[in-house]
Amino acid sequence: MLESRKVFLVNAVLNYFSSLCPITPGFIQEIEKNLQPILVKKNKYVLSPIDNNDDVFFVVNGLVRGFIKDGGKEITTWISFGNEFIGAIQHPRENFRPSIEYLQALENSELVPMSRLFINRLYASYQETNVIGRKILGLQYYAASERSILARIPSAERRYEKFMELNSFDVSKVPLRCIASYLGMRLETLSRIRSKLVKDLA
Amino acid sequence: MLESRKVFLVNAVLNYFSSLCPITPGFIQEIEKNLQPILVKKNKYVLSPIDNNDDVFFVVNGLVRGFIKDGGKEITTWISFGNEFIGAIQHPRENFRPSIEYLQALENSELVPMSRLFINRLYASYQETNVIGRKILGLQYYAASERSILARIPSAERRYEKFMELNSFDVSKVPLRCIASYLGMRLETLSRIRSKLVKDLA
Repeated sequence: MLESRKVFLVNAVLNYFSSLCPITPGFIQEIEKNLQPILVKKNKYVLSPIDNNDDVFFVVNGLVRGFIKDGGKEITTWISFGNEFIGAIQHPRENFRPSIEYLQALENSELVPMSRLFINRLYASYQETNVIGRKILGLQYYAASERSILARIPSAERRYEKFMELNSFDVSKVPLRCIASYLGMRLETLSRIRSKLVKDLA
Repeated sequence: MLESRKVFLVNAVLNYFSSLCPITPGFIQEIEKNLQPILVKKNKYVLSPIDNNDDVFFVVNGLVRGFIKDGGKEITTWISFGNEFIGAIQHPRENFRPSIEYLQALENSELVPMSRLFINRLYASYQETNVIGRKILGLQYYAASERSILARIPSAERRYEKFMELNSFDVSKVPLRCIASYLGMRLETLSRIRSKLVKDLA
């Protein structure tokens, strides 16, 4: 990756942080000195349960999903379209355990990893990090609550409609099998609902 | 409620906060001056969508659930056994809208409400609030992620097993119809799974 591209991607993280809380020169310097953006090619894993679950990732652009395996089956647990932090599920008090979630790029994705150790150092040294951290966690808590409510809607059709309502993004880039497992329905059910809705619109 | 009971309940909140981060005398004073614990009787609502969704609640003891209504049906979205903060889902940037979630006490429950306005004042005046806030939101984010993953496990039996594994609490106090909708299954399915597991153990 070109040095200038790296600078651009780290700046995207800094812009995101400063949209949440004013940041100080010392904080900016730490970020610029320590973050190393990465490009993850389409279909490659960002993280799998054989990795240590030490990092969270800012998705500058691309498409990443989280999934777990249950009896050999992949179940998509979330989908990220960028401009947010992602990570595998990890209890805040039990660091450095392997993750149960896989993170996979569904498109070429530019990410900026941040280790939990580094974040803890920022928490201890720069007060603004605590404000930024609670705002990001507030957004993530809200998103996870929405995912949790969505999956509990009994009707498959209503789940799909709610999913489309919540996501203003271009969901056409997400493979249908991922959407199906995310919505807790079989692929055939999802296809049937989609054709029905297209017909209803026609 | 007796004055001494109120003091006891507010102290429970202060103990919880100080287990997360050292708190200052000014912070303690604000809490003691402003919080008014409440007792919510079994089956009564703590909050419903006709209320303003202005408060979060520390559950000192009791049993509270969140639920939504979908086509007249109640769907339990979470269950709290106490010693944590609860609230109806609310986008962090869109305050003071009515909630879509109902909060209902399933047992007599002693709660300490805190308004979002009051919390924002604490954020602005006492640095430790930001540390406490991000730690609480980290715990809530983790719990919501677990709820979200749980609901996506395809097999009803595996969902029930996972639910029992995640909850070390006395789930026998929770009405079966609440557990069934929380686990996205019909009451009959839940009863069948439970009898099967009892037989397997015998």
